Amino acid sequence: MIGPRGGARAVTVTKRRGAETNRSRDALAVEEPLEIRLAWRDGDGPKRVEPLTVTMRTPGDDFDLVAGFLYAEGVVSVPEQLVEMTYCHGGDTQEYNVVEARLAPGIVPDMRPLARSFYATSSCGVCGKASLDAVEARGCRVLTDGLRIPAELLTELPDRLREAQAVFARTGGLHAAGLFTPEGEATAVREDVGRHNAVDKVLGRTFLDRGLPASDRVLVVSGRVSFELVQKAVAAGVPVLVAVGAPSTLAVDLAARFRQTLVGFARNGGFNVYTGEERVG
Amino acid sequence: MIGPRGGARAVTVTKRRGAETNRSRDALAVEEPLEIRLAWRDGDGPKRVEPLTVTMRTPGDDFDLVAGFLYAEGVVSVPEQLVEMTYCHGGDTQEYNVVEARLAPGIVPDMRPLARSFYATSSCGVCGKASLDAVEARGCRVLTDGLRIPAELLTELPDRLREAQAVFARTGGLHAAGLFTPEGEATAVREDVGRHNAVDKVLGRTFLDRGLPASDRVLVVSGRVSFELVQKAVAAGVPVLVAVGAPSTLAVDLAARFRQTLVGFARNGGFNVYTGEERVG
Repeated sequence: MIGPRGGARAVTVTKRRGAETNRSRDALAVEEPLEIRLAWRDGDGPKRVEPLTVTMRTPGDDFDLVAGFLYAEGVVSVPEQLVEMTYCHGGDTQEYNVVEARLAPGIVPDMRPLARSFYATSSCGVCGKASLDAVEARGCRVLTDGLRIPAELLTELPDRLREAQAVFARTGGLHAAGLFTPEGEATAVREDVGRHNAVDKVLGRTFLDRGLPASDRVLVVSGRVSFELVQKAVAAGVPVLVAVGAPSTLAVDLAARFRQTLVGFARNGGFNVYTGEERVG
Repeated sequence: MIGPRGGARAVTVTKRRGAETNRSRDALAVEEPLEIRLAWRDGDGPKRVEPLTVTMRTPGDDFDLVAGFLYAEGVVSVPEQLVEMTYCHGGDTQEYNVVEARLAPGIVPDMRPLARSFYATSSCGVCGKASLDAVEARGCRVLTDGLRIPAELLTELPDRLREAQAVFARTGGLHAAGLFTPEGEATAVREDVGRHNAVDKVLGRTFLDRGLPASDRVLVVSGRVSFELVQKAVAAGVPVLVAVGAPSTLAVDLAARFRQTLVGFARNGGFNVYTGEERVG
């Protein structure tokens, strides 16, 4: 799942446990920068290539990450708009740290930095409500599926996610995200040092597989739920979001606004339902 | 510690534990956007005001957050360069979500977005090594203090941090960061839904109190350690960084480069030392 260079690296570490000291080898989660560049043509103009962002991520599934990021940011909405993704070769060690995404003719990205943070368009400045409005202005719609998930399955999904986490078991340092069918079968599971990256990888893979909107899927994440994660799930049309950790206020507000089912603290055989309880069977 | 509107908000939640279902009130960690605007004069030109970034944060200690962010980004290096911070009033709900930071005459910020991510200046594109080089290019120096911290204290610091976490106890949803003396006394403790924000708040408070570089302090964080957190600690001259969670590869590489002591998995009476073992007594 993690590649091309693997998600873990061994280091020497000194372990102290009370008065005992041991030197040993331990695996760490790999963190490396990834630069995403966009290539496009504005009408009959020349080809333009510009850096969009740099994210610190765990190498592997980089094209999934780039596709998911571009989808979440609203740069592309169907796979046809993303003509090609390539690593920019050139030097030696850095060759897997720059991805160029080529957009289809007619797709001209908005490169203004604050435009991508959604808030600049709000007349009232920034606030929680403006953040919710901005998600709607981006084209996200209220979720109207009729999905139902058995409560027993909700308690099991975090364990199924954990079982699929190859690198975490060795490093303890990776977040995970997984997309599951209503029967509890995983369709995509990805890991990353960044929680938002793990979600971008899962949704990006599903986007490339023409699986979005994922209106009959459950997204499971290993940590806490922020506004940003709910936003990504809503944009991908995912009706149920399950987290092992706590949600924030704005995460709950956003889920409520789009009638998403938001489940938190899914562990130890129980869970909390914050919004959209009608989908919990 | 958290203010002006408090770091937690009560919501109604449905709790499922096996076959049992209960409705109850629960506290959530507040997440709201904060826009940071810079105001400066370029020579004799007119006053300019431009948005620098929007971060999702837990309201409270916002000026500490802004100061810490601007210090970490290299916009200011001494408190005199930050003349004033004010909330931008205007509407109603959003009045505490925009902070304008006024820079001293002669301080002209670099507003190019990728310049702030450090990587654009690297001739080899982006890679782990370029990220380390960029921190050095920013003016960060190898830590040359003679600090020593008893191993027993290192095992206690995460508990002391947790005890000082007022909001986490209620919500389970906040990261914490704290700066401690070599005797284990907390000089600043801050909470936030964003781990980097909690660190910015602590270091920003210390910056405003003229406590940087904090060459006789230990920074303790509640979660994992990424490149970004080590970078902030190195920029603030903090020689010892202690985390409850796992470090990433690039976090360890950066700590090694600047001879910082990096301690991870500090819990259950033990800890791992990844770099700078000479400071552990």
